[in-house]
Amino acid sequence: MSFYNFEENANPQQEDEHFMRLALNEAKRAYDAQEIPIGAVVVCKGKVIGRGYNLTEQLNDVTAHAEMQAFTAAAQTLGGKYLKDCTLYVTIEPCVMCAGASYWTQVSRIVYGAKEEKRGFTKINQNLLHPKTLLTGGILAEECGSLMSAFFINKRK
Amino acid sequence: MSFYNFEENANPQQEDEHFMRLALNEAKRAYDAQEIPIGAVVVCKGKVIGRGYNLTEQLNDVTAHAEMQAFTAAAQTLGGKYLKDCTLYVTIEPCVMCAGASYWTQVSRIVYGAKEEKRGFTKINQNLLHPKTLLTGGILAEECGSLMSAFFINKRK
Repeated sequence: MSFYNFEENANPQQEDEHFMRLALNEAKRAYDAQEIPIGAVVVCKGKVIGRGYNLTEQLNDVTAHAEMQAFTAAAQTLGGKYLKDCTLYVTIEPCVMCAGASYWTQVSRIVYGAKEEKRGFTKINQNLLHPKTLLTGGILAEECGSLMSAFFINKRK
Repeated sequence: MSFYNFEENANPQQEDEHFMRLALNEAKRAYDAQEIPIGAVVVCKGKVIGRGYNLTEQLNDVTAHAEMQAFTAAAQTLGGKYLKDCTLYVTIEPCVMCAGASYWTQVSRIVYGAKEEKRGFTKINQNLLHPKTLLTGGILAEECGSLMSAFFINKRK
């Protein structure tokens, strides 16, 4: 867990990029494990309280997305089910399942890196998030997207 | 696990009601544990290969829906991520998260009991399932819905 506190001395863009880099670190763990490289962290008051990376192959479980694990971990850290003062940082735009999960968490904000053109939830339905959840896309989009491209290029070799 | 094989000697309606009763048994476990009473089983070739009931309170995890657990259990039983020749029986119409999860499993069919008027996925978006997934609603709807009503009436007391 990272206890560096960004609240006092960083601007919002820097803060988003900082936490997206932590989500990218998670994505790289997925890459190293030969999983589709998506990573996520949940941040509350400047601290990482949950993280996860895609483990669908290792766990033989299509529900083991980075976001799902980060949500579960964050709720365990908080000792409460809801993530009302939290932000989810995820390297790739969430799918319908993860957007639906975020609804139940009532997470305050979702920040994603690269857009997911095929199965990103905004492509399917813009209105799947909780009304209280703010959405920001495009933070370190190129780095987040490049890791995915590298994975699929390697896979085809 | 139930190994009663329905393939040879039951009509489809009887088969659906049989397996919905098993999902109802799971829902009753949730009820007894003071959880919102929703239960699910995944059936493959006449056999239950996964089951689950809502555990969001006990696990302090909003993603711990009956369907999610049944999907994960079924994949573990099969040793494969996809549930292509399987049917999910669930007492209440799935939410967006669970419909999104079902997309990734490619489950052949979803059978639900009672409609969920507020957060059922068909209310939000009819097209969240995998194109190969068939949907049937209304099997033992009254029993499935009554268990929910009883739970919420008791909760208000």
